[in-house]
Amino acid sequence: MEIIGERINGMFKDIREAILTGDKTAVHKWAIKQTENGATWLDVNTGASAVDQVATMIWLVNTIQEVVDTPLALDSTNYDVIEAGLKLCKRPALINSCHADRYKIEIVFPMAVKYNAKVIGLAMSEESGIPKDADSRVALAMELVAAADEFGLPLEDLYIDPLILPINVAQDHAVEAMETLRQIKFLSDPPPKTVVGLSNVSQKCADRKLINRTMIVMLMACGLDAAIADADDLDLLDAAATARVIMNKEIYCDSYATLFKASKY
Amino acid sequence: MEIIGERINGMFKDIREAILTGDKTAVHKWAIKQTENGATWLDVNTGASAVDQVATMIWLVNTIQEVVDTPLALDSTNYDVIEAGLKLCKRPALINSCHADRYKIEIVFPMAVKYNAKVIGLAMSEESGIPKDADSRVALAMELVAAADEFGLPLEDLYIDPLILPINVAQDHAVEAMETLRQIKFLSDPPPKTVVGLSNVSQKCADRKLINRTMIVMLMACGLDAAIADADDLDLLDAAATARVIMNKEIYCDSYATLFKASKY
Repeated sequence: MEIIGERINGMFKDIREAILTGDKTAVHKWAIKQTENGATWLDVNTGASAVDQVATMIWLVNTIQEVVDTPLALDSTNYDVIEAGLKLCKRPALINSCHADRYKIEIVFPMAVKYNAKVIGLAMSEESGIPKDADSRVALAMELVAAADEFGLPLEDLYIDPLILPINVAQDHAVEAMETLRQIKFLSDPPPKTVVGLSNVSQKCADRKLINRTMIVMLMACGLDAAIADADDLDLLDAAATARVIMNKEIYCDSYATLFKASKY
Repeated sequence: MEIIGERINGMFKDIREAILTGDKTAVHKWAIKQTENGATWLDVNTGASAVDQVATMIWLVNTIQEVVDTPLALDSTNYDVIEAGLKLCKRPALINSCHADRYKIEIVFPMAVKYNAKVIGLAMSEESGIPKDADSRVALAMELVAAADEFGLPLEDLYIDPLILPINVAQDHAVEAMETLRQIKFLSDPPPKTVVGLSNVSQKCADRKLINRTMIVMLMACGLDAAIADADDLDLLDAAATARVIMNKEIYCDSYATLFKASKY
């Protein structure tokens, strides 16, 4: 299970202040903390408050790489911002994200190949939004799979996101996301990887962590490979480690949960 | 999600002592406690130490029904013991269990119909043991489904158990059990219900409760309807309640976990 630590994002107050003041403390702290907790990737998002998005992405990437060499997931809807980050990444990065619209695919997939990066492909188009049912999401996912082949992006470098909505406002979507994961893994051989923005599911819910850690293992049972998630939520990491063992992807030993958090697997 | 409280079982020391001494305290305590925690059923197992299994089952059923009217799951490999319990149950009971062997089906299914009881059907035969792969389990499950039709047992009264083994000794079985659940729900229309003996998965493991609560929601994502489980494990109940909401089987509200434990749904 790949955990993409979500914490270095300008929507969080401490990161927003770091961006506005140039104080690196919070960025360093979360880069180290998430890495120590076993995050496979660190998400990097400038947030909306940054005046110069490109300069902010450059500052964040450089600041993070001063203290850790964890691969980065560059998170922006602006591809100039993404490319500015890609140029600096010391290790192959993850582009977060690309809609299943042709004009976006034509920008992002060649960029990924050029920089040896991976891509999160969303099972939605800008035009139609998030489809309500699994079949429509699978159809869009398969367009992304076909595009990977077309542009020479290895399928293991494509992470399909079936899209997760808050359960308190769109309760019928979680089952569709699960079914989307199953079908993607069934229809493509080899299959692409899969990813979700986990914390979306519990937006404004009463017990967010309970919902997040329950959701992640249910999705793993359906074929989830990665999640943008709170890498500081140790109960979530324990649940993910346990699901890995149950899925027979790691050998059981009494200390498996400790090993997972220490990034030993 | 139906939780079948596992605690009234002669393998537990306090219940064994209650059986041997005739002191009803522990039986009353667990009957009430499991019911208050939201158990849909109470499992009743005399354990191996009881000298007279039939008399012990009669005593347990009567003792439990002195304090609660929760339906009972009569748990024995001896069908005389099961029938002695069935005669006393005030509410329709669950027979735990019947192997997919013809001679057992011919005893158990007519007995279930006679007493208006439900049946847990194991996806294994006495002869071949627990099949290693999902396909063989599904084949046995389908024999039980066909038998239900033959003997006039409504399909919603048949609970198929795909069989769970300890993860520290048979780690490859959990994935097969999940696949068995999926296929059973896919192949039969209407499908039978499904059940597992949850605690088996974590026998002699380091953090049993973590494994149990992770396993139950992964199985629920694959079609699990019921589990023989520790109804005193509140974290497990919270996880199951959350999975119900994620599966869109209960409407989200901020207090859903409290409502689940209070048997309000």
